Amino acid sequence: MTVVEELTNKAQALLEDRSFRELRDLLGPLFPADIAEIIGQFSPTDQAIVFRILPRELAADIFEYLELEHQTCLLAALGDYRVALILNEMDPDDRTALLEEIPAAAAKQLIKLLSKEQRQVAITLLGFPENSVGRLMNPEYLAVKQDWSMTRVLEHIRAHGEEVDVINTIYVLDEQGRLVADIRIREVLLAPPDLAVKDLIGRQVVALRATQDQEEAVEVFKKYDRNTLPVVDSQGVMMGIVTADDMLDIAEEEATEDIQKLGAVEALEEPYISIPLSELVHNRARWLVVLFVGELLTATAMGYFEKEIEQAIVLALFIPLVISSGGNSGSQAATLIIRSLSIGEIELSDWRRVLRREFGAGALLGLLLGTLGFLRIALWAAFAGHYGDHWPLVGFVVGFTLLTVVLWGAVTGAMLPFIMQRLGADPAASSTPFVATLVDVTGVVIYFSVASVVLSGTLL
Amino acid sequence: MTVVEELTNKAQALLEDRSFRELRDLLGPLFPADIAEIIGQFSPTDQAIVFRILPRELAADIFEYLELEHQTCLLAALGDYRVALILNEMDPDDRTALLEEIPAAAAKQLIKLLSKEQRQVAITLLGFPENSVGRLMNPEYLAVKQDWSMTRVLEHIRAHGEEVDVINTIYVLDEQGRLVADIRIREVLLAPPDLAVKDLIGRQVVALRATQDQEEAVEVFKKYDRNTLPVVDSQGVMMGIVTADDMLDIAEEEATEDIQKLGAVEALEEPYISIPLSELVHNRARWLVVLFVGELLTATAMGYFEKEIEQAIVLALFIPLVISSGGNSGSQAATLIIRSLSIGEIELSDWRRVLRREFGAGALLGLLLGTLGFLRIALWAAFAGHYGDHWPLVGFVVGFTLLTVVLWGAVTGAMLPFIMQRLGADPAASSTPFVATLVDVTGVVIYFSVASVVLSGTLL
Repeated sequence: MTVVEELTNKAQALLEDRSFRELRDLLGPLFPADIAEIIGQFSPTDQAIVFRILPRELAADIFEYLELEHQTCLLAALGDYRVALILNEMDPDDRTALLEEIPAAAAKQLIKLLSKEQRQVAITLLGFPENSVGRLMNPEYLAVKQDWSMTRVLEHIRAHGEEVDVINTIYVLDEQGRLVADIRIREVLLAPPDLAVKDLIGRQVVALRATQDQEEAVEVFKKYDRNTLPVVDSQGVMMGIVTADDMLDIAEEEATEDIQKLGAVEALEEPYISIPLSELVHNRARWLVVLFVGELLTATAMGYFEKEIEQAIVLALFIPLVISSGGNSGSQAATLIIRSLSIGEIELSDWRRVLRREFGAGALLGLLLGTLGFLRIALWAAFAGHYGDHWPLVGFVVGFTLLTVVLWGAVTGAMLPFIMQRLGADPAASSTPFVATLVDVTGVVIYFSVASVVLSGTLL
Repeated sequence: MTVVEELTNKAQALLEDRSFRELRDLLGPLFPADIAEIIGQFSPTDQAIVFRILPRELAADIFEYLELEHQTCLLAALGDYRVALILNEMDPDDRTALLEEIPAAAAKQLIKLLSKEQRQVAITLLGFPENSVGRLMNPEYLAVKQDWSMTRVLEHIRAHGEEVDVINTIYVLDEQGRLVADIRIREVLLAPPDLAVKDLIGRQVVALRATQDQEEAVEVFKKYDRNTLPVVDSQGVMMGIVTADDMLDIAEEEATEDIQKLGAVEALEEPYISIPLSELVHNRARWLVVLFVGELLTATAMGYFEKEIEQAIVLALFIPLVISSGGNSGSQAATLIIRSLSIGEIELSDWRRVLRREFGAGALLGLLLGTLGFLRIALWAAFAGHYGDHWPLVGFVVGFTLLTVVLWGAVTGAMLPFIMQRLGADPAASSTPFVATLVDVTGVVIYFSVASVVLSGTLL
């Protein structure tokens, strides 16, 4: 049993026999994140009790770490007074995440509970498009003017440091509030007290646009190895800051979406376990039907070869083997290319290089599987007398088809993501099952075409 | 053409007509990350020239942003003197990444070039296992004692602030150098000058273990929303700090590995585009062969039904449709569950809940595809006279099989990752092609079993 589980049970017990002081003493010293994890297990009403007995700043901290679904239940369970306390204490970016999640009517109610300036902040942040940097912004930061002395800067920090979350970087703004530069508190502390800010300013500043996509922001953080970045509007006016820890969550969501698309599932809005079954089915049904319709073509294709199958039943036995080998090879290639494209390892312009690589890789892998396929048939023919007198021909057909479909799979799987991106679509949308299906259909055609050429006059 | 591309061309031109001052003036004001991107396009010799003409601190900064392959070439091209300058200026964690990458012999040579204390640092960091937090550690941080006054702390920061990278958090150590607490510089600045450190210390401190896995560290950063975390050894002695921006890279690598495994490729050691073809093929061949051998079972299975196929060729036509529908449904389920497990949305203990969900989802999706399958056959029979007089039976066999395999696929795809994890393997190893192959084989058996029951006496 983990420490958290132990504490959860203890806390639950204390709740049941209503010994609230002990409960407060038990939870009080823990980290907000851990307390949130513990009471995450409680019923909304119990959560409300815990929130009433804990000191309010702590309550607000904990609230930020709760999952959205818990936050909303809790808000319903708590009285307006406590809700107001919590909302006003919350970090603006976390609050925005909450407000954008709950129904508009409820959000309006909550915003009413905010203090005048906090309401202003909340409304501004909600004004930014979803998944934009603005939504992650924390509008509280330290700003100084170019002509200030280090002494004045330090005074300013002493006076306003308490209101801000991040203090290691200080932002230099001009008279219009436009971002001029960022200086690190370290430089301020080390500089002679009478030095002016403008004499400290180095090279130009990296900043994010409030309307910029959050996934782009992740790339900027990665490229410049920053822990904090300033956010400006189209006029370059400083609006707030974003921190790297928020980027971790974005990067994870991004990867999850890619992975789900790769698996031919439309990206889920909520965690798998909490999403309604109807939505879960809906997100999977669409792709499954598309793939099904595509796969129907195999039936049509094989319809044309019905005569061949009738004359050489043995061919039918290897259909799944042939097509799924092509599909697997295609899935592998697609997976590699889609990921490389999405993390910028390769670009659209690299398609020729990739094509060459996949041609090489596909040919080698195809040769390998083709040989294995032939051997399998040869062995069974030799020792079990399967596949009749013409087994060498059958072996050759299967082996040669394997070589072709594996190569074809690798090339298709690698090129499809490029085509998707070229068309402005998300490469991940060329999911691996999609590639597999595509290769299945062509695989059937290749298989029987090879067969009818090689076996005509003998089996056919 | 992007700004960087423009600058690259300009720089290239200046290099060619040897106008180095202009080149320095062009690159000098840019961000190290951008300069690195620009000269990343140059030949090693040209890179070496640029490094000689740029101020050395800048050169070191730039060097940190170069890709490892470029770093190694460059070290070869530069003279020991410059190499020494750069290596001694580099951030210890970036230097470790470089030293662990290059051949041991070369690494030894480089370590010789380090100053006495830097050599000490480098050797310690290299001592930690690969993918351990220790490898990411920056051993430079601000440490203070519990009985110090705020004034003394600020003096200490003024004196040593220059050596450290992160200043917003200061670490409180006891006489044995064990980590007692962390205080934020903000608190120091706001506290009365004569207050003692120990009176500022709040709740216990979150710390990482130097030997801890880097992927675990990412989780800790996410859970506690931190930008910096201290690293301690088994005795709790403070060894260094890790920053959230490094976590972004780890999180990305982690996701890439998961994605590659999902696509039945062994995680690549290098970027797709730079990895040798032989390795690329090797990383794919193993899985492809495993899947192939698995898929061979379909041939064996169908061997048993050869008679049925002969009597009802029509059955063969729908084999790809049936098995790949099962495979797709399995891939979807596996993708969702593997990702949820890897980001901790669900745990081993949730398997019952997941099983229920997938049973529901699979049944609905199966019903959908089954109906579509039946309709397809009914329509072709009605309008094209396909599939003979017994088409309703054939339609039922295909429809019912689809229902079963889709359900079966969803359940297998969802449960396999749990089984993997239960066995201590990586759930992502139950790749989607693996699930698909498994379902293919069972699909064939289901299909013909259903057929032989339903069609016996009519077609069979």
